[in-house]
Amino acid sequence: MNQIAFQDAYPDDLSHCYGCGKNNPQGHQLKSYWHEQGQDAETTIARFIPQSYHTAIPDFVYGGLLASLIDCHGTGSASAMAYKMRDSELGSTPAMRFVTGALNVSFKAPTPMGVELQLLGRFSEAKERKIIVDIELTANGVLCVTGQVIAIKMPATMQN
Amino acid sequence: MNQIAFQDAYPDDLSHCYGCGKNNPQGHQLKSYWHEQGQDAETTIARFIPQSYHTAIPDFVYGGLLASLIDCHGTGSASAMAYKMRDSELGSTPAMRFVTGALNVSFKAPTPMGVELQLLGRFSEAKERKIIVDIELTANGVLCVTGQVIAIKMPATMQN
Repeated sequence: MNQIAFQDAYPDDLSHCYGCGKNNPQGHQLKSYWHEQGQDAETTIARFIPQSYHTAIPDFVYGGLLASLIDCHGTGSASAMAYKMRDSELGSTPAMRFVTGALNVSFKAPTPMGVELQLLGRFSEAKERKIIVDIELTANGVLCVTGQVIAIKMPATMQN
Repeated sequence: MNQIAFQDAYPDDLSHCYGCGKNNPQGHQLKSYWHEQGQDAETTIARFIPQSYHTAIPDFVYGGLLASLIDCHGTGSASAMAYKMRDSELGSTPAMRFVTGALNVSFKAPTPMGVELQLLGRFSEAKERKIIVDIELTANGVLCVTGQVIAIKMPATMQN
């Protein structure tokens, strides 16, 4: 993909997120991209390979990590959608940065270790200050987790 | 507290959880305990101090970590409640181990870095195979996050 990741377009001083910040070397550094931008459907994608210690029980991935990935893919997707709605380039100023208002995750099947996970995001609501992203997480093509992120535009008080 | 932590009573081969397993040295090692066991209300408690790199943006704790803590406090509390309902000692066999069916988290206020977080769990449903735990996470006495964990008794297929 020749796109810049949504999270890599965050301003430097807002790029310390443990889940996806490029300036957090100890973090997961999740990176989200546009997958489809058709007229009927816009989808976003992220891929992630858990570390061997990200276990729930042996052979299965820790649910808290999966919730974290959904969280960051959701707020990242919201940011990208906000730029798109403003018809401006990803990363242009003023920054469009979102925080999580609510995160709802449903575990459908145990997520196996040792394979690349794929997260696909779709938008069920997109307003200036509130964007809802529905996410499906699959492993080897099997749906393991679904999630919804209600993303809220970051208050100015958190950006200073 | 002279109690053993709920998670420390998990069988050794089910103690690798990245969030709370005693056998996962790279994990968060969250530990949950009984807080009150009155006739009218049973509550559970866990405390946690995030690492400096567990940031969302500078000065605030990463939401994915908070969701993880709620997840593990929820399944841990469910395990303890299941032993209690069976009127048997924590950690006795057969093991009562729960997995997360659904995790719903609502972020009420930014969670400050550098202070001990407290999680209090209450039970809104407790059946043999399904226990629902409602959790409040506070920092310096301020409610920052609420969450609900729908905990499901671990299928035998995951225990082998």
